Amino acid sequence: MPAISTKGRLMPPSPIRKLVPFAEAAKKRGVQVIHLNIGQPDINSPKVALDAIRNLDRTVIEYSHSAGYESYRKGLAKYYASVGIDITPEQILVTNGGSEALLFGMMACFEPGDEVIIPEPFYANYNSFALAAGVVVVPLRTRIEDGFALPSVNEFEALITPRTKGILICNPGNPTGRIYERDELERLRDIVKKHDLFLFSDEVYREFCYDGTEHISTMTLDGIDEQVVLIDSVSKRYSMCGARVGALLTRNKELYDAVLKFAQARLSPPTFGQIASEAALQTPASYFTNVITEYKERRDILVNGLNSIPGVICPEPKGAFYCVAELPIDDSDRFCQWLLESFELDGFTLMMAPATGFYAKPETGKHQVRLAYVLEKELLTKAVECLRAALTSYPGTTTASSASEVGRH
Amino acid sequence: MPAISTKGRLMPPSPIRKLVPFAEAAKKRGVQVIHLNIGQPDINSPKVALDAIRNLDRTVIEYSHSAGYESYRKGLAKYYASVGIDITPEQILVTNGGSEALLFGMMACFEPGDEVIIPEPFYANYNSFALAAGVVVVPLRTRIEDGFALPSVNEFEALITPRTKGILICNPGNPTGRIYERDELERLRDIVKKHDLFLFSDEVYREFCYDGTEHISTMTLDGIDEQVVLIDSVSKRYSMCGARVGALLTRNKELYDAVLKFAQARLSPPTFGQIASEAALQTPASYFTNVITEYKERRDILVNGLNSIPGVICPEPKGAFYCVAELPIDDSDRFCQWLLESFELDGFTLMMAPATGFYAKPETGKHQVRLAYVLEKELLTKAVECLRAALTSYPGTTTASSASEVGRH
Repeated sequence: MPAISTKGRLMPPSPIRKLVPFAEAAKKRGVQVIHLNIGQPDINSPKVALDAIRNLDRTVIEYSHSAGYESYRKGLAKYYASVGIDITPEQILVTNGGSEALLFGMMACFEPGDEVIIPEPFYANYNSFALAAGVVVVPLRTRIEDGFALPSVNEFEALITPRTKGILICNPGNPTGRIYERDELERLRDIVKKHDLFLFSDEVYREFCYDGTEHISTMTLDGIDEQVVLIDSVSKRYSMCGARVGALLTRNKELYDAVLKFAQARLSPPTFGQIASEAALQTPASYFTNVITEYKERRDILVNGLNSIPGVICPEPKGAFYCVAELPIDDSDRFCQWLLESFELDGFTLMMAPATGFYAKPETGKHQVRLAYVLEKELLTKAVECLRAALTSYPGTTTASSASEVGRH
Repeated sequence: MPAISTKGRLMPPSPIRKLVPFAEAAKKRGVQVIHLNIGQPDINSPKVALDAIRNLDRTVIEYSHSAGYESYRKGLAKYYASVGIDITPEQILVTNGGSEALLFGMMACFEPGDEVIIPEPFYANYNSFALAAGVVVVPLRTRIEDGFALPSVNEFEALITPRTKGILICNPGNPTGRIYERDELERLRDIVKKHDLFLFSDEVYREFCYDGTEHISTMTLDGIDEQVVLIDSVSKRYSMCGARVGALLTRNKELYDAVLKFAQARLSPPTFGQIASEAALQTPASYFTNVITEYKERRDILVNGLNSIPGVICPEPKGAFYCVAELPIDDSDRFCQWLLESFELDGFTLMMAPATGFYAKPETGKHQVRLAYVLEKELLTKAVECLRAALTSYPGTTTASSASEVGRH
């Protein structure tokens, strides 16, 4: 039997999904599992999008243009204009989710062996796309005690080598909930310009900003027009993760043409998903007002609850719908598995994503977990109760002070 | 401005789509373009699939399992049993079209620099997926005068080196329409076994067999259970190219687990497409009887028409809905562009795919074109008339005898 490839062996399993078998076993035992591990919102998709699907008047489900329907790209250009991003339909390429935009972008920009600096903790699948493209991830540590702020220019420049070809940020941040401020982004812009790098900017959580925090797109920064690669998706915006419709935006014509060739090879993004996404552009503003009010309330319940547990530290996220919490535990993988295998409170337990998968070196996230607040408030309240109780009975709980100590090194 | 990657530069443009701007210009001049360049069927998708979409009862369009809905994979396993393929739902991974199955399969099986032998002419995008995965395509020439039959064992073995890691076939064949016979497949099986190779088998045209020709899946060959990687798709079967739902099948557990990790990174195949595809499994047998009768009639009109033109050679395809024809011309790229720019007959012209994109070395296909017979019969009759007239007025038409000569070297 021939051996599988090195990439096949090294590709990391999803930290969000790897505990699924334990969750399934818990459910078979009759335990209700509260899923804070995955950013699958329970919010309804916009009615206008679902109606477009229900009123489908086609008889043949054909390929679209490889870059996506022109009518949809025109609609997207208007949407981007409404959020302050100046872009033409010919600079937008519709993809199979943000995932494909990341993969195509990396393959078109970077040689195998090129280095990309990513502030960590970062969305776990960046590791996977980098591995698929042969790109080396160079993590730049951000710290929970600083609210995961972007490090100084010096810290960035200390990592730059002749192989450095790009920087990748997620803003608003998954898993941190951080929204970068103007001075952070301008520092980034200067580095990108000075060292002639691509700047990948994953902005799929653009709509989810709380407490009046402003989201600033990298596409609005001066002087790096041809260097910014914007990654987008309808998954979270319209609670349509399963539509698998994303987009790559670039004002760099040469890069666009290269990405289009990757897109031509896979023929077309999904037709049904594009129909729903084009209709979703008509979603009324009230939809977002309601959703954001709801998420803010959920965030407050979860984050205030977490910070009320002795030894738990969780900075208040300003965007997206995740938070990273530091827990007084020996090992987040072990703890998350133990919650599913050996714990219950009134028939409930909790599923979280160990933060080990969100750092380039897993051990850095050994005392942290990522939680998504995409469930209704009663369940979040219950989740906090479960966690509080679990930390008193888990055999690997450390004292609050020592945990906070190890979390910092 | 940073440079794009080598892959980005080398990725070939789609030979099927690269003439699109010339077709658009022709349409703007009022010329009706008969599209024989692309396998986008005009056949209606099954009603049962469209109804499932129209009756959608979900309110949140969620991710599915990364391997696809379990209910759909169970349904697929039954479908495969009905065509003689013994496979479990846990050996099926649902993908974003056959395209993603090919890309994930190549990345999980092959190291960059590994060689894969592909009988040519072959589906143009194999070049693209190979380039993305860093795989070296080693073409094995098949000949129009032999009806594109699989070459002898000796011809295969002459190409095998220490870097050879796989063979990729398309059966029924795009672009040739060839269906491999049992003895051809058993020879292939013996080579794969002897040299410990992966055998990728693209069988997306399984249903499209004419004149009573039997399709034999590589999954039914003895002794290479863990080496066969089957690529499939609903695109052609149900005339649902835009659904973007394919599948990768393997009985090799280690390989399945590796491919699943690539699938987890991109989260989920499309939800809408899977709903339509699962419903499409209930398509009545009469749908296929009608479709196949229709395609056979179309094939006869096109292929008989082509062979009635002096200097044109086109072996009768037994499957799929393409044929490769040799034409008495200097250069198929130039000719296909000329048809769109400088020719019309009664307000019509013809768009074909130059076969240069279907060979590893473009010049091998310089006197050949690929034609898809996916349009109604009147248009195919008109297309043959156009081609006959065009060959008399095209400045690069060669004499019948000399063209046939050059086509053979």
